[in-house]
Amino acid sequence: MKSNRKIYLDYASSALAESANPGAIHELGVKEKDRLEEARARVARVLGAHPDEIIFTSGATESNNLVILGMPRGHFVTTNIEHASVLEPCKARGKATLVEVEKNGIVDPQKIQRALRSNTRLVSVMYANNEIGTIQPIREIGKVIRHFNKTHNTRVYFHTDAVQAVNYLPINVEKLGVDLMSFNSAKIYGPKGVGTLYVRRGMPLHQIMFGGNQERGLRPGTENVEGAVALARALEEVEKIKEREVKRLTKLRDYFFKRLPQGVIANGDLEARLPNNVNITIPKIPSDLLVIELSAHGIMASAKSACKSGDEAPSHVISAIHPEIKGEIGSLRFSLGRETTKSDLEKTIRALSDILKKLKKWYD
Amino acid sequence: MKSNRKIYLDYASSALAESANPGAIHELGVKEKDRLEEARARVARVLGAHPDEIIFTSGATESNNLVILGMPRGHFVTTNIEHASVLEPCKARGKATLVEVEKNGIVDPQKIQRALRSNTRLVSVMYANNEIGTIQPIREIGKVIRHFNKTHNTRVYFHTDAVQAVNYLPINVEKLGVDLMSFNSAKIYGPKGVGTLYVRRGMPLHQIMFGGNQERGLRPGTENVEGAVALARALEEVEKIKEREVKRLTKLRDYFFKRLPQGVIANGDLEARLPNNVNITIPKIPSDLLVIELSAHGIMASAKSACKSGDEAPSHVISAIHPEIKGEIGSLRFSLGRETTKSDLEKTIRALSDILKKLKKWYD
Repeated sequence: MKSNRKIYLDYASSALAESANPGAIHELGVKEKDRLEEARARVARVLGAHPDEIIFTSGATESNNLVILGMPRGHFVTTNIEHASVLEPCKARGKATLVEVEKNGIVDPQKIQRALRSNTRLVSVMYANNEIGTIQPIREIGKVIRHFNKTHNTRVYFHTDAVQAVNYLPINVEKLGVDLMSFNSAKIYGPKGVGTLYVRRGMPLHQIMFGGNQERGLRPGTENVEGAVALARALEEVEKIKEREVKRLTKLRDYFFKRLPQGVIANGDLEARLPNNVNITIPKIPSDLLVIELSAHGIMASAKSACKSGDEAPSHVISAIHPEIKGEIGSLRFSLGRETTKSDLEKTIRALSDILKKLKKWYD
Repeated sequence: MKSNRKIYLDYASSALAESANPGAIHELGVKEKDRLEEARARVARVLGAHPDEIIFTSGATESNNLVILGMPRGHFVTTNIEHASVLEPCKARGKATLVEVEKNGIVDPQKIQRALRSNTRLVSVMYANNEIGTIQPIREIGKVIRHFNKTHNTRVYFHTDAVQAVNYLPINVEKLGVDLMSFNSAKIYGPKGVGTLYVRRGMPLHQIMFGGNQERGLRPGTENVEGAVALARALEEVEKIKEREVKRLTKLRDYFFKRLPQGVIANGDLEARLPNNVNITIPKIPSDLLVIELSAHGIMASAKSACKSGDEAPSHVISAIHPEIKGEIGSLRFSLGRETTKSDLEKTIRALSDILKKLKKWYD
């Protein structure tokens, strides 16, 4: 009906009437605000959280930065295999203890406990590692922290970077015992440029960017409603198929590991590991070269962490679990997903064998 | 062809093969990287800049924060009508002089000049105001700064927040004489959650978030390629129709101003003003109420800046140009755009008259 057509005169808030500014108080703004709050409630429901505990950000890097840089002063505890978006802000702040993981790429909760001090403010341990897929004992670390808080009459907060875990592991924040949890949309089959942060009520977090009062004052800037809705949708889809995908991919992963050529070193624990992660080191052969050779065979794999590719620095994760090699060794990561089939892995194994045969002439 | 199907085993970098991580060195990653760099080059071309001078961010709030918080120590000069995403980080840093605009909402370049000190590092003046649409004399301010730099053998940098200007004003950075320029996609008919920052070569800017080395080390996090491409496309479209839209909207705006009911106060200069901005104050009647009444008539307008709606604080812009009223006065903004027709404005004028007739009984 022509007469019901809205007259949109709020182009300065948002140029597109169909995605008005959720800060606007007119009908279309209120509608967008409702969509945003519905997305927030949907994310909260999956995490077992309150909607007001969910903050939308531009991605996991921002979520992690908000936690590390937005926490009040004090001593921080983290591990030596965290993602750069945790390690680098920790370095920028200073005063962080990096607990070393064991040879299998898993941190010992007792070592976290021993790193706690009277002025410790935050423990940040990733749920699953992005390079080698090892799963950290988040519940156990949570217990250690709660025990420390009780016996020392203090309040150490617990953050986990769950970016790689969301697809495959339980993410109920109460059961995990975390106070803060980061993840993004791009790793759970949603669009890029949107992430989220669970912030338990009562956290003393402060904003790291300044402007409007969006997202409970923790994240200024016009809200990306489309992104938030897409993230919520992606998260619900993940929950729906999680159990099935874990079973299917675990089988594929174990099959892949078994069929790998001789002489290949598997990196990280083979059990406490994401069902979709295969990370190997092939002695003497640069992993970048392997990725390029595989790509020429139509197979997309990764050397170290893709987020750090293009750097010259070796992987800090591989260096952490293979300290004897002093970081000169590369690693090759195959990360499986929804479209991966057994036939894909068979082709990959054949291609890898061919490539190794060719390259070993040069590198042996 | 089945045999040409790519085998994607890089889900941990990006769950969607069709938007792979541009940091990956396999074929699909390189393709994404190419798309990103093409978007960067397209934005640069429109601005008359080098591609390496374009940084993609999550929006204008982040771009402005990056400028203000990422600049080395020193004294800053800005105005008292900047957007919150400039003013608030200035407050967080401290040491900023807020030059007061004139009654017409325009800053006097001589007053900027008088605010410059030997330790001034940055001048940040918005190109056009988001509430009242007044256009600042950016070229003149640029000249003042270059003269100061020459005579004082120093280097004060010049930033402009061009968010509201891009649709209607010339944005060649060389001709404008700016060193840094922020804007986003959402105000130029593109999606939310993506912005950009022009950073002239040689700027001593440092990152404000930490993680990977994306965007020349100034903006960590997996790049939102889809967003960057959409921003580039939106910007090119703006350039294509800019001249025509300026003419069309200027006529509509002036018609609207002329037809406004008696007793209405126009805010901001009527000439040096965006072609799409009509901002008025209706004495005694709360502007929030007017927005809600207009919305009930199917007309979407804004009270103050939508980014700050929901706040209780009065508009700092209206307070700045009407200091005598001490901020108790509200303002109503109509911002026109691509779909706006003369008939829309006629209906709006009729609705506004009806609403005023009704409300004046209560507020007179």
